[in-house]
Amino acid sequence: MRKQRVLVLGATGLVGSTLLQILEERNFPVDSLRLLGTARSEGTIMNVFGDSVRVEPVTPGCFKGIDICFFAASADAARVLARQASDNGAVVIDKSNAFRMDTRVPLVVPEVNSHHLERHRGIVGSPNCSTIQMVVALWPLEKAARLRRVVAVTYQSVSGTGKQAMQELSVQSEHVLEGRAVRPQVYPAQIAFNLIPHIDDFGEEAYTGEEWKMVKETQKILDRPDLVISPTCVRVPVFVGHSEAVLCETEKTLTPTAARDLLSQSPSIEILDDPDENLYPLPVHVASTDKVYVGRLRKDLSSPNGLWLWIVADNLRKGAALNAVQIAERLIEMDLL
Amino acid sequence: MRKQRVLVLGATGLVGSTLLQILEERNFPVDSLRLLGTARSEGTIMNVFGDSVRVEPVTPGCFKGIDICFFAASADAARVLARQASDNGAVVIDKSNAFRMDTRVPLVVPEVNSHHLERHRGIVGSPNCSTIQMVVALWPLEKAARLRRVVAVTYQSVSGTGKQAMQELSVQSEHVLEGRAVRPQVYPAQIAFNLIPHIDDFGEEAYTGEEWKMVKETQKILDRPDLVISPTCVRVPVFVGHSEAVLCETEKTLTPTAARDLLSQSPSIEILDDPDENLYPLPVHVASTDKVYVGRLRKDLSSPNGLWLWIVADNLRKGAALNAVQIAERLIEMDLL
Repeated sequence: MRKQRVLVLGATGLVGSTLLQILEERNFPVDSLRLLGTARSEGTIMNVFGDSVRVEPVTPGCFKGIDICFFAASADAARVLARQASDNGAVVIDKSNAFRMDTRVPLVVPEVNSHHLERHRGIVGSPNCSTIQMVVALWPLEKAARLRRVVAVTYQSVSGTGKQAMQELSVQSEHVLEGRAVRPQVYPAQIAFNLIPHIDDFGEEAYTGEEWKMVKETQKILDRPDLVISPTCVRVPVFVGHSEAVLCETEKTLTPTAARDLLSQSPSIEILDDPDENLYPLPVHVASTDKVYVGRLRKDLSSPNGLWLWIVADNLRKGAALNAVQIAERLIEMDLL
Repeated sequence: MRKQRVLVLGATGLVGSTLLQILEERNFPVDSLRLLGTARSEGTIMNVFGDSVRVEPVTPGCFKGIDICFFAASADAARVLARQASDNGAVVIDKSNAFRMDTRVPLVVPEVNSHHLERHRGIVGSPNCSTIQMVVALWPLEKAARLRRVVAVTYQSVSGTGKQAMQELSVQSEHVLEGRAVRPQVYPAQIAFNLIPHIDDFGEEAYTGEEWKMVKETQKILDRPDLVISPTCVRVPVFVGHSEAVLCETEKTLTPTAARDLLSQSPSIEILDDPDENLYPLPVHVASTDKVYVGRLRKDLSSPNGLWLWIVADNLRKGAALNAVQIAERLIEMDLL
């Protein structure tokens, strides 16, 4: 593969640093690598591909001579900088929410809709973590039996919020165990030994932003604006790994066995589903792995064509950094840079 | 109220000791109180109603001269001892799974179906924790709009398993924070900073015992064997308080506002539902309280007559001990002892 001049914006964050690891692990064809960060992380030295790379600030002209920009920063930063980068000839792969619903920006999970990449105009969106893992698992069912309805309930880890949230869970857990008072800072309430049914801001119809992302992003990725999806998103005291209980109804009947066969044919999915052996996906087991794990596959007791899935994945990898790198790999393969 | 000769079996357990507290708090009309326990807890002294009461072993004749027996023990113990107690003239209120599906035994949540008490034959079942809080919240909707379908996804605290499980969560959490290895004992996998989608044994159709309890018990309590209910039950690293994301479809249309009004009329329910104020029920806030808390009330995005509810309650109190005491209070009021 032709070597690429790569830039990573937000290199020191959880997703940015995971992305650098993944570029190395997958032997991504890097010609040159620039790391950009906020004023706070400027000057940080990061080890990548055996080199020490210094994190630089964003400056005028910093996007010149770049092929691929990975944006692992905030939506605000992406809104200001993405056009600048793409106007300079780079393709931006943005993990933020800034452009996901922009009709000119493809929103891509490579296993599902890499054909959408063909119409990119310099910016490609990588979906929200909770959407990505659900869509990977739903796609084989959509192709074989066409989805009619999806009900999704999530158990989302704190790493989805960032490093400070992981620190907050650690410190609060210690304090609770020591009988000390807890002062929430990152989250609106205590997260240690608790649950918070509130991720992102509340919006229309009393659904949160996170819930609307699962609806709208899934519809866009699957090219199914008509698909009805109803989510409840909940933050749980887990460090890494999002879990989802998903009930989907399909047009054609699929037995659990047929669904298991379909899912197991996807190279991105691993089935962990053997009640006799207490085998089902667990967040502590998926951390640092690349697949989407599915278990508890069974017939819905409340509809003729319904199936339950328990879907778990590493939200920093497949839910964010890995998906972005896979988008870049497909852009190279499809000669779209 | 006429004073009762009361016996508590399993007095030193989490539910048993909570039950003793509740009898005191509610000024239950106790004439005499006997506490029974396993060989391990025999001789333990417990403080109740200002007295020191010694835990006795089960002996032949121990149930003689008793009006009300609270069974806060295992299903095995209940199977052996309940008939013996009722044959001696006591009414047994059993929190275990031993008799819940027995057609001769009423299964009662007093707010919902205390009329079932009229046909008791010496044993009354108190339902499973995850059923009780769901049924309290569903009942006003069932009465006003008739339920058609219920999808329930749970987040269940470790106190539902007992004292050892609470200890396991504490110790494992400390070990994880210290970077030490974790050895699961009570649960089939690590519970600290993790989730386990497996409560009770796996059974028919790959649903767990806990999931089947939510189905069958709800149908029995509501007198609705035709009601379709589809649950996924998950253990979470929370000490006290079960949470449930419940999607219910009704025959008649109910707006979220109408549903909120109906629910708020129940003295057992407290609505905590104001997105603008980050107000929704949280497990850490419900511990040691008696109500069933409901929030995140909103229209389902995937069906015309669907409503989402986020239901949280103290699983040791309304989910177990309090419900048993309320059954006893109703038996007295209805003159059924």
